[in-house]
Amino acid sequence: MVQAAVMGYGVVGSGVVEVLMEHKESIARRTKDEIGIKYILDIRDFPDSPFQDKFTKSFEDILNDDEVKVVAEVMGGVHPAYDFTRKLLESGKSVVTSNKELVATKGAELLKIAKEHNVNYLFEASVGGGIPIIRPLSQCLAANEVIEIAGILNGTTNFILTKMIRESMSFEEALAMAQRLGYAERNPAADIEGHDAGRKISILASLVYGKHVYPQYVHTQGITKISLEDVNYASAWGGVIKLIGQVKKLEDGTLDITVEPMLIAKDSQLANVDDVFNGILVRGDSTGDVVFYGKGAGKLPTASAVVADIMDCVKHLGKRKYLDWADGDESIVKPYDETVFPVYIRAAGKKGKKALYEKACELFADVKEIVRSGSAENELAFTTGDMKVADTEKAVAAFESFGADVLSKIRIADL
Amino acid sequence: MVQAAVMGYGVVGSGVVEVLMEHKESIARRTKDEIGIKYILDIRDFPDSPFQDKFTKSFEDILNDDEVKVVAEVMGGVHPAYDFTRKLLESGKSVVTSNKELVATKGAELLKIAKEHNVNYLFEASVGGGIPIIRPLSQCLAANEVIEIAGILNGTTNFILTKMIRESMSFEEALAMAQRLGYAERNPAADIEGHDAGRKISILASLVYGKHVYPQYVHTQGITKISLEDVNYASAWGGVIKLIGQVKKLEDGTLDITVEPMLIAKDSQLANVDDVFNGILVRGDSTGDVVFYGKGAGKLPTASAVVADIMDCVKHLGKRKYLDWADGDESIVKPYDETVFPVYIRAAGKKGKKALYEKACELFADVKEIVRSGSAENELAFTTGDMKVADTEKAVAAFESFGADVLSKIRIADL
Repeated sequence: MVQAAVMGYGVVGSGVVEVLMEHKESIARRTKDEIGIKYILDIRDFPDSPFQDKFTKSFEDILNDDEVKVVAEVMGGVHPAYDFTRKLLESGKSVVTSNKELVATKGAELLKIAKEHNVNYLFEASVGGGIPIIRPLSQCLAANEVIEIAGILNGTTNFILTKMIRESMSFEEALAMAQRLGYAERNPAADIEGHDAGRKISILASLVYGKHVYPQYVHTQGITKISLEDVNYASAWGGVIKLIGQVKKLEDGTLDITVEPMLIAKDSQLANVDDVFNGILVRGDSTGDVVFYGKGAGKLPTASAVVADIMDCVKHLGKRKYLDWADGDESIVKPYDETVFPVYIRAAGKKGKKALYEKACELFADVKEIVRSGSAENELAFTTGDMKVADTEKAVAAFESFGADVLSKIRIADL
Repeated sequence: MVQAAVMGYGVVGSGVVEVLMEHKESIARRTKDEIGIKYILDIRDFPDSPFQDKFTKSFEDILNDDEVKVVAEVMGGVHPAYDFTRKLLESGKSVVTSNKELVATKGAELLKIAKEHNVNYLFEASVGGGIPIIRPLSQCLAANEVIEIAGILNGTTNFILTKMIRESMSFEEALAMAQRLGYAERNPAADIEGHDAGRKISILASLVYGKHVYPQYVHTQGITKISLEDVNYASAWGGVIKLIGQVKKLEDGTLDITVEPMLIAKDSQLANVDDVFNGILVRGDSTGDVVFYGKGAGKLPTASAVVADIMDCVKHLGKRKYLDWADGDESIVKPYDETVFPVYIRAAGKKGKKALYEKACELFADVKEIVRSGSAENELAFTTGDMKVADTEKAVAAFESFGADVLSKIRIADL
């Protein structure tokens, strides 16, 4: 019997306890050892829980108990999770987590501490919930050079965009529905502003490229400015708008890493990833495109990924899994201004569509108008060819001086 | 430096050598050790190859060289691969393979020998080519009860069906095109009769349910009888016909495991897996549906999966990966006759459509006619509700006695 502890008894934490209890036998068969839960740490009381004997409010109970070999940190947030995790690793306990914020901001440091103390720090559940992605990336695809990762990494925003695309809801209506259904929090900023997806693409990039890419290096833009007009133009263009977390290795060795809404073509494997689902495309030089798809969040999917990591720690007690990246600095990321991609632009102006189109052709590369029935008068939507972001910005400024009111500008993906 | 050997210098074998050579540095960085290729075994001569010093025609060179720790068996077929693999494992060398036929027929035995000699026998490349599936199933999804696996496991047949669905090619035309493009072999039986997919679902079922499910227990049916009429009726019904390898655990603990063409609804995640791509859906009780998608075959995708296994062996020299299943017998599989599912049936008869429909309603459960423009006169197509296969057979016999010529009968998937 190996003893484990669970820190945080919220949605994921209670799921972890449930999965460990309900699958006790099959887990024991697979790990060749039973896994017990000795402590559940939470500051709240749960008078109706059947696990009264396991609850503690004192972190030290877990830290000082030599019997506890593996701890699931499912508290979320950086503090006090960071401090707890560090102390646990230093005391020779393995830690597994679903805490993407902590891994994205402190991953390199915690992995280093784990290495120094010959224990494991695993975080399969931090990206994609129940979708296996960390382990396939670090093990199965290890013989590949990963050229690009692009993913729909946040279920809440994908639900909102799906409602806009499929049911012509406005952003506000769709957000309100997501909140009613429990998909979005009352303060939805972390999701709709793209920060959650930013943390996840940080983790994937760090894993694949071997250096920590901190979230603050990732150009991050949410979906709050997406309008139904844009959704309709995207459809006329032959695609959909999705919030994409993406990292590409450029020829000079730097990374083009962003989270932003993108137009993706309808025949892309990510275009049909709808509702709260996540989809992650990994482009390898040998494997070609491999896509992972499933529920990216939710109690049981996430909990089952945490439990799989606990099992892996139990199977590897005293042995290290090769999961590792070095510290990194901003120099590994290409400044957003210098990245190059085509964009979709929607603009209106009193001078009329024809004049706007002629001016656009003058200012932007390879302009192609998007025609759709029902578009507003004096409104022009078009796509450009590849342009450096700084040049696009200059062209937009000149376009506005000319009298165009630029209403939207959205990246076009190369998926 | 860890020395490896490659047995078989065909498409996959030459790819393995290429990936090991071209990614030498990044592989060394990730495994913390360089991997050298000491031998390449092949009975043929390759006078133009730059690796003259590595070729050997003698298996004993590899077997008797203590320096060789890991061997990639990419010869295919059961003999002599089985004999070679057994001897290598017994001599304390780890073996990795893409040989689905060998794993499907001798997996339990070879895994047992590997265990006894504290070495690894890994086969990520045997299913899904470069798509990670074996490792996610055995590790990431370990905390799940897998309720069902359903996959498009054979790229050749999927290419043929895609051409029939998208371009209204006949089966024969599409097969000829697949052969011209090198997707199908001159003798295409293993693909089009479903045997290749049968081996793959055998491997996945054995892995997930812990007992060897031999291919001869798997009801296997290919796509040679699929006609354009069926494809068109499937479209009118709202779906497509795909060759699906499927395993489900039934309530009595036995497995419903088959390879057969199935009608799947257009909104299923497998419906858009087209051309030579593979897609594998894993339904877990905690994770829900997780889908893996990518190129299921081809030189570099498959080779990169083999190399990832080599790397894993090198990282685990002297340690065992937990990959294991016991021997199994026919009792773990539900006889096909006793399995239950709805079917699509197409029939013709001189008595006319109306009489056929009335008789069908009498004989089959929950009959629903499929109406489409352009259908032949006196032809009726319909779907049934859930029926035991033995009962469907009896109903078909009675239908034929009545004067119906039953032209097609295809399972309807629950995906």
